[in-house]
Amino acid sequence: MPGTHDDLHETTHGRSGVVEMVGLHGFVQLAAFTRLATDAEHAPDLRVQVTLARMAAGELAALDHLERVAREQGADLYEAMSGYLEVLRDFDRRTPPGDWWERLVRTYVAHGVLGDLQRELSRAVDADGRPLLDDVLADSGYEDFVVALLGPVVAAEPQLSARLALWGRRVVGEALGIAQRVLAEHPGLWAFAAGQGAAEPGDDGGSLRRQLSAGHARRLDRLGLTA
Amino acid sequence: MPGTHDDLHETTHGRSGVVEMVGLHGFVQLAAFTRLATDAEHAPDLRVQVTLARMAAGELAALDHLERVAREQGADLYEAMSGYLEVLRDFDRRTPPGDWWERLVRTYVAHGVLGDLQRELSRAVDADGRPLLDDVLADSGYEDFVVALLGPVVAAEPQLSARLALWGRRVVGEALGIAQRVLAEHPGLWAFAAGQGAAEPGDDGGSLRRQLSAGHARRLDRLGLTA
Repeated sequence: MPGTHDDLHETTHGRSGVVEMVGLHGFVQLAAFTRLATDAEHAPDLRVQVTLARMAAGELAALDHLERVAREQGADLYEAMSGYLEVLRDFDRRTPPGDWWERLVRTYVAHGVLGDLQRELSRAVDADGRPLLDDVLADSGYEDFVVALLGPVVAAEPQLSARLALWGRRVVGEALGIAQRVLAEHPGLWAFAAGQGAAEPGDDGGSLRRQLSAGHARRLDRLGLTA
Repeated sequence: MPGTHDDLHETTHGRSGVVEMVGLHGFVQLAAFTRLATDAEHAPDLRVQVTLARMAAGELAALDHLERVAREQGADLYEAMSGYLEVLRDFDRRTPPGDWWERLVRTYVAHGVLGDLQRELSRAVDADGRPLLDDVLADSGYEDFVVALLGPVVAAEPQLSARLALWGRRVVGEALGIAQRVLAEHPGLWAFAAGQGAAEPGDDGGSLRRQLSAGHARRLDRLGLTA
């Protein structure tokens, strides 16, 4: 709500919003590295293992850039990231995959929701901030890879498909819960999005939730699963 | 023993030796990625986590190059790598770390022994093969990193130091066992080293074992631990 805050408040909020945003980006990138590297270790064949390992490595590329932005704000990237750790640990504890396919679907769903969250909160970032965002949000090819790997299996095995659809619903509930908790625990994120014009004044997050759910439904549809 | 084989034998042996060597390099690089990525996940702070994640990512750099060399030999890198998987799984099963420090020492020891094995078997590779080897054997800074992280802890805590020295002896026994089993199950490796003049005719591997043990002792000494 530009214009309704006094200057000091605006500045404080602006700075902390940027730092919380940079921390969120750093955290999501590192979480993606960890998930993909762990999935690689469980992959049923070496080619898939190496492909996932390479995608994991690619997720780290933006961290140098994020470190610099945090420093420019007088902040420390790792401190900014640390505020997000607990929520991911909870997610992992609440969604133990039963097999390789459930593991793959879990990462696919969470990766998608968190990526959409990053995108939605940064929608209105100006030209100065775009190069960093392009780094952070670069398409690693992960979504296409999972669709190519899992799509044919889903199409061929109705029983597995039904189980994974059910699993996908459980996982997305938890992933949307992460997004909600992240926003609740880091009000600077919301202020940042609002300051950039990406959130409407008075919006309680309903439109963001709808965006995240729509993105998820589109991704599950690509797998041939019912959201 | 150049000159004592007939041409066909030489060629067959030479080709399979190169493929087994490339498979070994690919396997060690991927194993290093997996170990470092898993250690990263267990790291006690975010800065260490990101450093280890970056080092893990660096271990993959040589795989493109190895894929090409395997293809030039009419072989498939992943098939060549697959012959080494079981031995690493065994190693992991036999050395479950009890805490973060034991985990760090385990990777440090195994990483060192396997790196030395790669180096020793490739000692006499000619100029054509050097750029690839430089990629594969590039120093990731991992050894220095562990020394900087663990050295002061070892120096300050005699009880932990004694426990880790004991653990290091157990782990190196298993790591040298890997090296020995790898050579026994892949006679092409030894033929490759001999063909390059890196192994003496009649050498039963005793000098290699001595090299690996000496490298290990030097690395433990850098940590302030007794080998």
